Amino acid sequence: MTDSPLRLPLREIHTALRSNKLTATSLAEASLEAHRSRGQHDHAYMTWNGEAALAHARATDQVIRQGGDTGALMGIPVSLKDLFAVPGLPTYAGSSQRLPPRWEQAGPLVRALLAQLPSVMGKTHTVEFAFGGLGTNAHWGAPRNPWDLENHRIPGGSSSGAGVSLVGGTASLAFGTDTAGSVRIPASMTGVAGLKTTAGRWPGKRIVPLSPTLDTPGLLAHRVDDLAFAFDALDGALTGRDDRVPATPALAELTLGVPSAFFWDDCSPGIAECVEQAIRQLEAAGARLVTLDLPNTDEAYRLFMEGGVAAAELSAFLKTELPDAIAALDPNVAARVEAVDDMPAWEYVRRRALVDKLYGMAEREIAGVDAMLTPTVAITPPTLESLLSVEAYARANMQALRNTMIANFMGLCGLTLPVGNDTAGMPVGLQVMAGPHQEARLLAIGQSIEQRLGTGISILGEPPTP
Amino acid sequence: MTDSPLRLPLREIHTALRSNKLTATSLAEASLEAHRSRGQHDHAYMTWNGEAALAHARATDQVIRQGGDTGALMGIPVSLKDLFAVPGLPTYAGSSQRLPPRWEQAGPLVRALLAQLPSVMGKTHTVEFAFGGLGTNAHWGAPRNPWDLENHRIPGGSSSGAGVSLVGGTASLAFGTDTAGSVRIPASMTGVAGLKTTAGRWPGKRIVPLSPTLDTPGLLAHRVDDLAFAFDALDGALTGRDDRVPATPALAELTLGVPSAFFWDDCSPGIAECVEQAIRQLEAAGARLVTLDLPNTDEAYRLFMEGGVAAAELSAFLKTELPDAIAALDPNVAARVEAVDDMPAWEYVRRRALVDKLYGMAEREIAGVDAMLTPTVAITPPTLESLLSVEAYARANMQALRNTMIANFMGLCGLTLPVGNDTAGMPVGLQVMAGPHQEARLLAIGQSIEQRLGTGISILGEPPTP
Repeated sequence: MTDSPLRLPLREIHTALRSNKLTATSLAEASLEAHRSRGQHDHAYMTWNGEAALAHARATDQVIRQGGDTGALMGIPVSLKDLFAVPGLPTYAGSSQRLPPRWEQAGPLVRALLAQLPSVMGKTHTVEFAFGGLGTNAHWGAPRNPWDLENHRIPGGSSSGAGVSLVGGTASLAFGTDTAGSVRIPASMTGVAGLKTTAGRWPGKRIVPLSPTLDTPGLLAHRVDDLAFAFDALDGALTGRDDRVPATPALAELTLGVPSAFFWDDCSPGIAECVEQAIRQLEAAGARLVTLDLPNTDEAYRLFMEGGVAAAELSAFLKTELPDAIAALDPNVAARVEAVDDMPAWEYVRRRALVDKLYGMAEREIAGVDAMLTPTVAITPPTLESLLSVEAYARANMQALRNTMIANFMGLCGLTLPVGNDTAGMPVGLQVMAGPHQEARLLAIGQSIEQRLGTGISILGEPPTP
Repeated sequence: MTDSPLRLPLREIHTALRSNKLTATSLAEASLEAHRSRGQHDHAYMTWNGEAALAHARATDQVIRQGGDTGALMGIPVSLKDLFAVPGLPTYAGSSQRLPPRWEQAGPLVRALLAQLPSVMGKTHTVEFAFGGLGTNAHWGAPRNPWDLENHRIPGGSSSGAGVSLVGGTASLAFGTDTAGSVRIPASMTGVAGLKTTAGRWPGKRIVPLSPTLDTPGLLAHRVDDLAFAFDALDGALTGRDDRVPATPALAELTLGVPSAFFWDDCSPGIAECVEQAIRQLEAAGARLVTLDLPNTDEAYRLFMEGGVAAAELSAFLKTELPDAIAALDPNVAARVEAVDDMPAWEYVRRRALVDKLYGMAEREIAGVDAMLTPTVAITPPTLESLLSVEAYARANMQALRNTMIANFMGLCGLTLPVGNDTAGMPVGLQVMAGPHQEARLLAIGQSIEQRLGTGISILGEPPTP
């Protein structure tokens, strides 16, 4: 594992591919090897595409040898959450049934990705219809969190296989989606970096929706620098904007907001301590810290716990597009979908208006700092067996999502990067949030933080070998 | 009436005010005189502001004499639908109770208007919470359609006093709102011109909402040219765009889409004939006519008849902001608000998604023509007594709204201008629709049509004197 080329920085892979020090084929072969050795244990993939990806990588190398360059993600092994429609691969979206053929036709994001000729290693597991933050799935089982060999701890969700595909060495870049934390939670729990984009920035077409209001496509990778590299490779084509990640700012130039409460409440042992220590290191390096409590955080969380807007939006999608899927839903998903059958339309309208209000207030407030820092997830990844009852699942799910859902309900973008371990030995993430459409600047700030604190690979070391 | 300066083109008023051929005071005095002579008969105003407006006009004239110029609408007598919050005037929104004080604080549109020092003659009647296209109101009564002295025919709604304030000579420009036709229907039924803006273009803040999804502020005036003048006076400040109305195109340069069905179905006697004749005149002047049937028109109308999205959105507004108003609702409004108490949230989500889909399809389709022409309203304004039963009201309401609601459900902008009389002697409107945010170009096309066909004042002549 240590010397897997898939763990190299994307910038190095990019250069090495173009100077023939590395080939797309060798990267794909290393992915296949990792999948052979630990794929069954990790259980990251719903659909493994290894052999086809290897054949594709050989063709990509032919193009490279001819001097062709299709873009920054050329030849890079990637995984995609099984919500993204990818031609030639089935989409289940975590449900028991393969979705209709239109969910195998690429949308704008996948088209922009595939045009660069990455190696698509496969489609990763997801919570059914992405409706849960822990990573469980009654139909297909949960990927294993790679940082605990003894207990089957959850990997975080809903992009439950995304982080595992990175740590397990089968992909260098993973695509997920984040409606309330579904990129940041699995990134944090598996010790990698993750980017949640601003809602509406990257098109969601042909990505199976949970909540069109709050859904955002996002990225997971070993380091913030990799996220910045991949963001620059995709954002222009998807938005028509020219928001390239700027030069990394010095920490001494930054004012960082730290909340006094809410995000710190009831953290599992070692999590708050680890994040506080990371923040102190940033302060020691010159960053200016200020107390920043976003207004109406409690109101947003209460709205979330009541079901927010996602349950009604998922229910509408299922009833109109996939009515047969409803009877077969994972019990933990079904409980929340059925709960909104009695919710009146006006109550949904009220909630949407509240989300709009929260967006506006948060944008004004966070504009006063360069970024805001919090723990990404308040709890250590629980074991699967601790989640067997519906009540235990529901409680842990809300706890896991609490710190991340704020960015979704307030219209922010955010990222997470690993900063250490909790007392259970599991990875701990630092969440960095910024205002809407501040992705490029946020990534530069994240790079600055990472340069000071180290990357996940340097901080956490090797995951144990199964 | 004939020589009322309020019936002059706004451009002429604008020039005359600045060359001392006319004063804001004389305009306001003429408005007061008209109100004295026929105000009680017309019943256009919920709150008449005549004396205060006259005092304000005198001050405005002082500014003009000092060489001050506060904008194109300076000194022009205007009326506002009683949904717009205007400082110093109560807002009832057609309900039985005065709304809380925040509904008397100006929003962006009223601020942009008042900064130009118009003479605010008063707040015009509206259907309760704007939820109806006929113009009736169980609490305050319906304004009279000025074109029939014998029968109390409806003036069109929901901006029920807006057109009447123009025809009655108390205002030269009237502000209304249009959620399914509420500017265009009263304009058409009272023989004036009306502009429905694209949803989201002009801010709705501090305008009592019916449907935040579909509500649009709009304008009524004696001619399209007046609408173009007023649009140029307001749009830049409200949008930050520089979409000034361009030079009037020659009809021979225009391709105009005419539907083959739907809009022509079941028109009252004389309406289709009158509009067809107008369209033939445009063709004779060189306009190229093509058949254009917007896709999913029937689907949109079915969605509308099922209640669309407005009922749930109004219900949410009332329950959260004005719960006491619900028990006192006009029976015709209450029926539709109560009907959605049983509508589940997912059904509302489905409808919103359908509206989004309709927007996209219509935009693509209408881009193939310069504008689309239809009758504005399919029915002659019914008499009040023909609407006494809930069923008769509901049927006439749907008929009145049918041709206008399409622009709202498809995200278009549109205008109406008078083109003649039906066999009942009531005004007939030609509706001109264009794609989203094409207001400036649409108004130029409307001016071109008006130059060919004549203005409402030239076509319809004087309204009968009560």
